[in-house]
Amino acid sequence: MPVNLSAPDPASLHPVPGVRLGITQAGIRKQGRRDLSVIALDEGASVAGVFTKNRFCAAPVQLCREHLALAGNQIRAILVNTGNANAGTGEDGLARARQSCEALAGLMGLRAEQVLPFSTGVIMETLPVDRIIAGLPAALSALRADAWDEAALGIMTTDTVPKAASVQVEIGGVTVTLTGISKGAGMIRPNMATMLGYVATDANINPALMQALVTEAADASFNRITIDGDTSTNDSFVLIATHRAAHARIESLDSAEGQALRAALIKLSQQLAQAIVRDGEGATKFITVTVDGGRDEAECKLAAYAIAHSPLVKTAFFASDPNLGRILAAVGYAGIEDLDQTLISLHLDEVQVVRNGGRHPDYREEDGQRVMKQAEITVRVNLQRGAATATVWTCDLSHDYVSINADYRS
Amino acid sequence: MPVNLSAPDPASLHPVPGVRLGITQAGIRKQGRRDLSVIALDEGASVAGVFTKNRFCAAPVQLCREHLALAGNQIRAILVNTGNANAGTGEDGLARARQSCEALAGLMGLRAEQVLPFSTGVIMETLPVDRIIAGLPAALSALRADAWDEAALGIMTTDTVPKAASVQVEIGGVTVTLTGISKGAGMIRPNMATMLGYVATDANINPALMQALVTEAADASFNRITIDGDTSTNDSFVLIATHRAAHARIESLDSAEGQALRAALIKLSQQLAQAIVRDGEGATKFITVTVDGGRDEAECKLAAYAIAHSPLVKTAFFASDPNLGRILAAVGYAGIEDLDQTLISLHLDEVQVVRNGGRHPDYREEDGQRVMKQAEITVRVNLQRGAATATVWTCDLSHDYVSINADYRS
Repeated sequence: MPVNLSAPDPASLHPVPGVRLGITQAGIRKQGRRDLSVIALDEGASVAGVFTKNRFCAAPVQLCREHLALAGNQIRAILVNTGNANAGTGEDGLARARQSCEALAGLMGLRAEQVLPFSTGVIMETLPVDRIIAGLPAALSALRADAWDEAALGIMTTDTVPKAASVQVEIGGVTVTLTGISKGAGMIRPNMATMLGYVATDANINPALMQALVTEAADASFNRITIDGDTSTNDSFVLIATHRAAHARIESLDSAEGQALRAALIKLSQQLAQAIVRDGEGATKFITVTVDGGRDEAECKLAAYAIAHSPLVKTAFFASDPNLGRILAAVGYAGIEDLDQTLISLHLDEVQVVRNGGRHPDYREEDGQRVMKQAEITVRVNLQRGAATATVWTCDLSHDYVSINADYRS
Repeated sequence: MPVNLSAPDPASLHPVPGVRLGITQAGIRKQGRRDLSVIALDEGASVAGVFTKNRFCAAPVQLCREHLALAGNQIRAILVNTGNANAGTGEDGLARARQSCEALAGLMGLRAEQVLPFSTGVIMETLPVDRIIAGLPAALSALRADAWDEAALGIMTTDTVPKAASVQVEIGGVTVTLTGISKGAGMIRPNMATMLGYVATDANINPALMQALVTEAADASFNRITIDGDTSTNDSFVLIATHRAAHARIESLDSAEGQALRAALIKLSQQLAQAIVRDGEGATKFITVTVDGGRDEAECKLAAYAIAHSPLVKTAFFASDPNLGRILAAVGYAGIEDLDQTLISLHLDEVQVVRNGGRHPDYREEDGQRVMKQAEITVRVNLQRGAATATVWTCDLSHDYVSINADYRS
């Protein structure tokens, strides 16, 4: 059961001029699933992306990097399959990913390097490229500008709810649209997850700014979520700009227009990223972990992730058990070398649990218990040694997480 | 159900001359549990220890460090309580730990700093020091040289089986005994766990060598196990030498006698450490992870721990599902910057699964499945970039892990 998350109203997902989406059933792993999506971009669009830092990155990730380097601002199609991650597949996997790009390019009159391929699903199994190629015509004939809701369904794996959102922002007197989709569910942690995210905008922006923009948005959103600490082989977040909006071209991210676009993109990316946590495998709670009072953001992140990754902390949240010493223990092993435990404070929502490294004298277990029973909880730790802060989002660890991952391939 | 682990035969646990153990029920958290143990050392014993690196270390750990520095080779008693970890308890916790040392010292005619205190159990609750003090006379009157089996029971928390072992070794023509106990169960990872371990020997060894010896033994044993990646606030491993054996004093760990003692201690420590994994919370499988072919041991350890900590890998083992790409993914995010995925091989016991970073052409899923169904499994990864190697031991992640940690305090 996702935490305060339901399927988006299709009417809320504004089309982005210059972007069409087509989804079909290709029978890649199972019959009867929408498992193949094409996002077609009109000529002139710019694309930038951030990809998994896993050294064992999948074949499609390798090809994405290669094609973005080769074809830069001439990307015209995005191809996504579920059911098979084409990772751990060696040279053969690369060849199959290339074949799928070539086939789509052939049908669309493009060069293969104008296609970015994405795969998600089981690792280390051979990509059934014939089924992908056989499905392409149906996906292409389904292309529509208002199919974002279907695309959100088409990229799902163990997700239980499709994830899509849309925002509009005024830039230079013109309404600019940003619409995106994401999928996640398991294997989520910083530096990307089995996480796919796509955001398109009609904003008119200097293509040279795209990489900085997508990197900043990822750092503030998809790189701040963790479900189980596993960094996947396939994580990708892609930003598309079609430049169709009639405002003057944005030449700097620090201009008023650049800042408006950046803020809208970060808001949308956080919404898409948090949706992944809300629908985390087996999640029953949505937990915001904020660490304040660090010397720098890096040490705040260390502590926040130690809390968010701890299986003991996560099972305590699942049980609504205010066994909050586990949070202190996680801060203690986060790797902050000269941490002084006698300064640390801990709040659970508005309830102060710890002061000066020990239980607050006024803390009552029933207050902790009350907060722990909520579906959304904020954990706030103050290290009392500086002014830096960092926030990450995570979920609890439940029986269903084990069931889902023990049964994934069955 | 622990994995191939049963309670030790009390007759197999050789007493160590100069060491007596007394266990009682003090009602610290629950009635009717043996929860208080005293280990009394005859005058002349040497003690050295390694302790958690968690910055949020518990009050007793702080006192152990202080007392070892103050009283060096004059430690005469070890005091262990379960049911309460006295961690996250601030100044009050330190004062209570001091009181318990003072009380035991008073009864034994010692100075407080000749007592090492240890606590394990729930974090961030007030230590019921009155109950500990009230229980001390009973523990002292129970002191016996042949109570190692009872002490193993007396230090258990969520352990399901007491952990104790004994080895004997010939040194300088004399039979030397090493006997030890350990407890663990959850919150286990390198740099110590909610792990307590005590090994006593009658070996006659220069006290100046004790710290190096215990550190080396911990690095080869307790620091190579992981259950859930959580480093506890209380982990301690203590080595006691009573020097009673009639061989010439060992003056170097590199002498034949020093090496014999070291080998016996490492063997015993590994047995005690592996017993913790075999009885890991919810464990159904005992997994040995060996990474070969690294440039140095550090990077082999990085990869081995990434595998051993991955919830996805651990749930796949629980399900006996050879979803082995998850192992490759873990190697990929281990943090080895310039790792070449196309060199990597993976074996599951004798079955080669991966060659050159991709599925081995002869690998058949039924072979992987057969190994995955075993209770004991060896995962072997070769990075093919050097001659270094490292091994860690872990268990799977099961429904019972979640149940145990969700219900721990209920």
